[in-house]
Amino acid sequence: MNTHSPPQQAIHHFSEALPEQHYRVVRLMRARGVMSRGDLAQQLGMSRATVTGLVKDLIDRGILQEIAGGRATGGRRARFLDFNPDFATVLGVDMGATSVDIALANFRGDVLARHNEPIDVRDGPEPVLGRVVEIAQSLIARVPGSGEALRSIGIGVPGPVDFANGTLNVPPIMPGWERYPIRPKIQETFPHTTVVVDNDVNIMALGELRAGAGKGVDHFVFVKVGTGIGAGIVVGGEIYRGSTGSAGDIGHIQADRNGPVCHCGNIGCLEAMASGSALARQAMDAAQSGRSPILAQYLASGVSPLTAEHVGAAASAGDQTAMELIMTSGTLIGGVLAGVVNFFNPSLILIGGGVAQIGTQFLATIRRGVLSRSLPLSTQHLRIDYSPMGEDAGVTGAVALALEHIFVGSL
Amino acid sequence: MNTHSPPQQAIHHFSEALPEQHYRVVRLMRARGVMSRGDLAQQLGMSRATVTGLVKDLIDRGILQEIAGGRATGGRRARFLDFNPDFATVLGVDMGATSVDIALANFRGDVLARHNEPIDVRDGPEPVLGRVVEIAQSLIARVPGSGEALRSIGIGVPGPVDFANGTLNVPPIMPGWERYPIRPKIQETFPHTTVVVDNDVNIMALGELRAGAGKGVDHFVFVKVGTGIGAGIVVGGEIYRGSTGSAGDIGHIQADRNGPVCHCGNIGCLEAMASGSALARQAMDAAQSGRSPILAQYLASGVSPLTAEHVGAAASAGDQTAMELIMTSGTLIGGVLAGVVNFFNPSLILIGGGVAQIGTQFLATIRRGVLSRSLPLSTQHLRIDYSPMGEDAGVTGAVALALEHIFVGSL
Repeated sequence: MNTHSPPQQAIHHFSEALPEQHYRVVRLMRARGVMSRGDLAQQLGMSRATVTGLVKDLIDRGILQEIAGGRATGGRRARFLDFNPDFATVLGVDMGATSVDIALANFRGDVLARHNEPIDVRDGPEPVLGRVVEIAQSLIARVPGSGEALRSIGIGVPGPVDFANGTLNVPPIMPGWERYPIRPKIQETFPHTTVVVDNDVNIMALGELRAGAGKGVDHFVFVKVGTGIGAGIVVGGEIYRGSTGSAGDIGHIQADRNGPVCHCGNIGCLEAMASGSALARQAMDAAQSGRSPILAQYLASGVSPLTAEHVGAAASAGDQTAMELIMTSGTLIGGVLAGVVNFFNPSLILIGGGVAQIGTQFLATIRRGVLSRSLPLSTQHLRIDYSPMGEDAGVTGAVALALEHIFVGSL
Repeated sequence: MNTHSPPQQAIHHFSEALPEQHYRVVRLMRARGVMSRGDLAQQLGMSRATVTGLVKDLIDRGILQEIAGGRATGGRRARFLDFNPDFATVLGVDMGATSVDIALANFRGDVLARHNEPIDVRDGPEPVLGRVVEIAQSLIARVPGSGEALRSIGIGVPGPVDFANGTLNVPPIMPGWERYPIRPKIQETFPHTTVVVDNDVNIMALGELRAGAGKGVDHFVFVKVGTGIGAGIVVGGEIYRGSTGSAGDIGHIQADRNGPVCHCGNIGCLEAMASGSALARQAMDAAQSGRSPILAQYLASGVSPLTAEHVGAAASAGDQTAMELIMTSGTLIGGVLAGVVNFFNPSLILIGGGVAQIGTQFLATIRRGVLSRSLPLSTQHLRIDYSPMGEDAGVTGAVALALEHIFVGSL
């Protein structure tokens, strides 16, 4: 399965080409939401007349529509522009290691139908993507006309992505997926749609950027603490992927030079010491050694294997060892994020992923870890919070990814 | 002296407003250098006719000029566009903690006159900036007409900068400079020039970006190892300053949790363990304790205090302890940069600053430190090199900074 290497295929293959200036209007509105013609002229550095012409054309094409504004200016009601919801539909797929969440949305990003269920990516690409396609078809069947209007599909996958090719690079927990041609596989069922594949943490960051706590924030970091640990980076209001698409791989920054060996072969990686799987392993140890009476109870009652969630439950129930495990994890993550803050100087760090639900003490120790190790100049305007979108960030971002690839700018 | 807080003054105060599309042409040419009309049309997504009109106007204004191209296409010689060198002059000032380097350049960035000499920023802003102005005046006196043509001045300073205000924030080694109004002070002598102040490491990165090894590189990091340690970050071909202007402060990332206390109050900061001043301190220790015979010899011969340069000289002369000091410094820097590589995924890291001249072993251990701790996906296309511009990066970047602020885009 590791020998797939399809010819490189541009991601915009089926995207509609818009003249460059029209495209700039569409792109800006994706970032900013509802705007007036005056806002557009100012932001794009175009004359009011140019914008009026472009907007008329975009309305004629069915891409934009006028909506009534709330503010009356000089007796006249300001008219605002929004995307025409009926112009197209898209699919957003948030694929985790153990579950998939799929949404069908209109051109404005409103979710029309949604479904999630457990999967196991280790089953390999054929059965997993087969199931994704089935779910997508059932969602489309629930919304009349949505199949004909389908223009693009955004997919988040739990591993490093070659964004140009839409394939996974050396996915550590996904045997069989390396360089598997995801895009053509999906296009067998949905021909003439643009399929865009990105890393799951990047789409979570994109979800927060477009519709969550990251809206209007120039530079921020979304940290997913789940089975592994990774970060999505936003620079200047756009996802930053780095030179080879592996930016944000904070799970393999060294947290402790005397730490355990990571599955990557290095020593003391953050992921090996503070992720959900590390917590699960530490929980089994604590239960078996008797250090944690409550975790030992869970194990005795037949719960196995223990997970990060059990650590959270035990800590809530007053288990001292479980609380220490959470605080150690938070402190290590905070220490690595302190370095990120010194280097990157973001104004916001959002913590998401399954382990973010382990309790408020986790966030508190992360914050403490960052603040104790960063310079005041970098932290005076820094917010560190749990992702308010929670489990919705991924699928929201996958829909946003799809929406952003319906068009491509041209001359 | 710490109570200065002048009203905020926009950096473009004296910059000439160019219509937005003209401005986009100028900006792109600053980034790319000599271009044809066809290149401009393609890169800007404008029609050939639009570009031809804009270029004609820019030539009429004296901003651009046509130059003969080398390649003949279809029998015709391609005509290329360049900046008109005579349109304006600028000054670039690279102020270090102990020296200043000032260049007078034409609108194309060619250096017309240059001078550097030792200074001590601890003398405070009035005498230091007074001397900068004197040097600038003497350079201008050497080039007839350059004073009348002077449009902007770019200044790099060795501390964290509030870029919008052109002032220093809490400069650890610069008493008296905090929030000192540098811009108005310079404008007393050079009224109607735009004065732009930036961090010294940012201007070094800008120098490499515009005229050095960073030319055409999208994402890279310039690391200055001198008295302190800091980084200039380039994202998408532009200097990245972060949310509050403190991005790149890698000197205060923890390199060893059991390390010494840093002047910032934290423990085991990279700067406290691996900078030029750390090496100097370690050299004194090694000389006084007798661990390093050659450094002890230097000290006995009256050299005091020992510096990082002496460590380099001792290592070259075969001193084992001096070599170990260099390798420990390189390993610590490499370890911190490994984290930067995992997070930021640059394709290039340039090492500059005074300590970069300590020998090739230093670079070798930095490289080893990065490669041993980063994932292959992040390092397969990563180059780590000494800055080839060396001492010229700062002043070249200061000139580039000045050139980029002659104009401002408008509607």
